[in-house]
Formats: sequence, C-alpha cells, structure tokens
Amino acid sequence: MSALPESLLELVRSGPLAHLTTINADGSPQVTVIWIGLDGDQIISAHMRHNLKIRNIERDPRVALSFAAPHDRDQMRNPYAVLRATATAEPSDGAWDVLNRLAKVYMHPDSEFPQARRPGYIVRYEVQRISGIGPWAPS
Amino acid sequence: MSALPESLLELVRSGPLAHLTTINADGSPQVTVIWIGLDGDQIISAHMRHNLKIRNIERDPRVALSFAAPHDRDQMRNPYAVLRATATAEPSDGAWDVLNRLAKVYMHPDSEFPQARRPGYIVRYEVQRISGIGPWAPS
Repeated sequence: MSALPESLLELVRSGPLAHLTTINADGSPQVTVIWIGLDGDQIISAHMRHNLKIRNIERDPRVALSFAAPHDRDQMRNPYAVLRATATAEPSDGAWDVLNRLAKVYMHPDSEFPQARRPGYIVRYEVQRISGIGPWAPS
Repeated sequence: MSALPESLLELVRSGPLAHLTTINADGSPQVTVIWIGLDGDQIISAHMRHNLKIRNIERDPRVALSFAAPHDRDQMRNPYAVLRATATAEPSDGAWDVLNRLAKVYMHPDSEFPQARRPGYIVRYEVQRISGIGPWAPS
C-alpha cells in the first residue's frame, strides 16, 4: 500500500506494545508482544535471537501486527490498529542499536537496552492493509 | 489444561484489552481487539454480530488470545499472556448481559453497555497452553 497515514505513524512513535502474530508450521497462530519502531516511514522490529517468530516469518511472511492506543474508558471501542503485513527478517549487526533506540521510547528516555550488544535480526513490515478502530482505519 | 492460574484470572478480571487472533479461510491471521471476562473460571467473550471472527471460529476453532498487563516502563519485557485456545461460538440471548457486565470493568463502574439489548454470541475459550511473560507463564 502507499504511505502509512500520519495518525498511525504517530501511534507507532508513541511506543505501543505490539502483538505480533505469525503462523506456525501447523497453521495455528503464534503471538508475542514486541516493541516496534520506524525506519523512515517503514515499521520495523528488532530481535536478538533466532526464535520461533523469526523462523515462522522465514517460512510464511504473512503476519499481523496489532496495537492499541492508550485505554480510553470513555469509549466502548478503544482505538487500535491491526496491520496485515508481509514481514522479512534479516540478520543485522544493527538490531541492538534499534532496540537501544526503542528502549528510550518503551522504557525511559535515558534507558540503555539491558542486554549485551551483539548481532541480531531486523524485521521489516510491508503493510498490505490497515484495520481496527481509529483515524488510520476509516470504517 | 487444568484450572487457569489465579494470577492469570486476576489479570483477566482487571479488564485488559485482548487481541483475539483467528485464522482466515486462506490461512492468514485475523486480529481484533475485544473485551474478555470470566464465567466461573472460564474465559469468555461476547459479541453482538455474526462477524468475521465468529465465522472464522466456526470454521477453525484454533485461536490465540493475548493481553498485556499495564505497561511497566521499568521492565524491558512487559508482562503479558498469550493463550492458545479452542474457541466455541454459540448464539446467546445473554451476550448483551455479558457485555453490560464487562462495561463496568472496561469502561466505568456505572456504565451500561451502549447498544440496544438483543441476542448475540458468546465465545468460550478452552485454554490449551499459556505463554508470555509473567507468573502465569513460568519460563
């Protein structure tokens, strides 16, 4: 799809805990909660280990990323975004640097990523469709 | 599996926005953010319409429910739960009553569910496996 809407980029920049769904070999869903960020206008995530979600992405790149805006108890339908995306995972020496940058968003402005610097993996999300509730997903 | 751990029931009772993943006919993931609650010690959700997630559950009952504890910026790995479950969706005259009860948790203690009372659907989740980060998912 074309550029992501600014309202969605803004939500990503705010550091929402993101639920990443990949598909297991048996067709069932696998979900983990991750940090996400932007590389330019592209959504990315970084990971230190070649774990199940990375292996799932390598086999089947169809994923969903979902994340809610802060809980608004005045609204029955809390704003959230679901992105259907094609994910690509690549080994990267820069994975730790991404996580260290995101630590300042998801933890505290002066936080360092609390693991040793070493190579990891960067996942890039090519978004096909946006749904959910909010200005990024007009119904 | 046997009874859900009390720490998990407590998190459910607190009213976390839950990401429900079902599987589309083409094998791709479908995610929506929903309210969840307990019927005794069983996790349930209620829905007013026979929408895509209900139709997906009817075709393939393998789902994931994921929800985070409140964001704790002092922790790199925020507590969250991922439940692999078998879901069953049944038409129910009581769906609205469940939603009205949950409105008091997810909105305000005196909130009424802001839709007209009518029949809907109740989904029950038979949990097969718990993962994530927290006392409910010892690593």
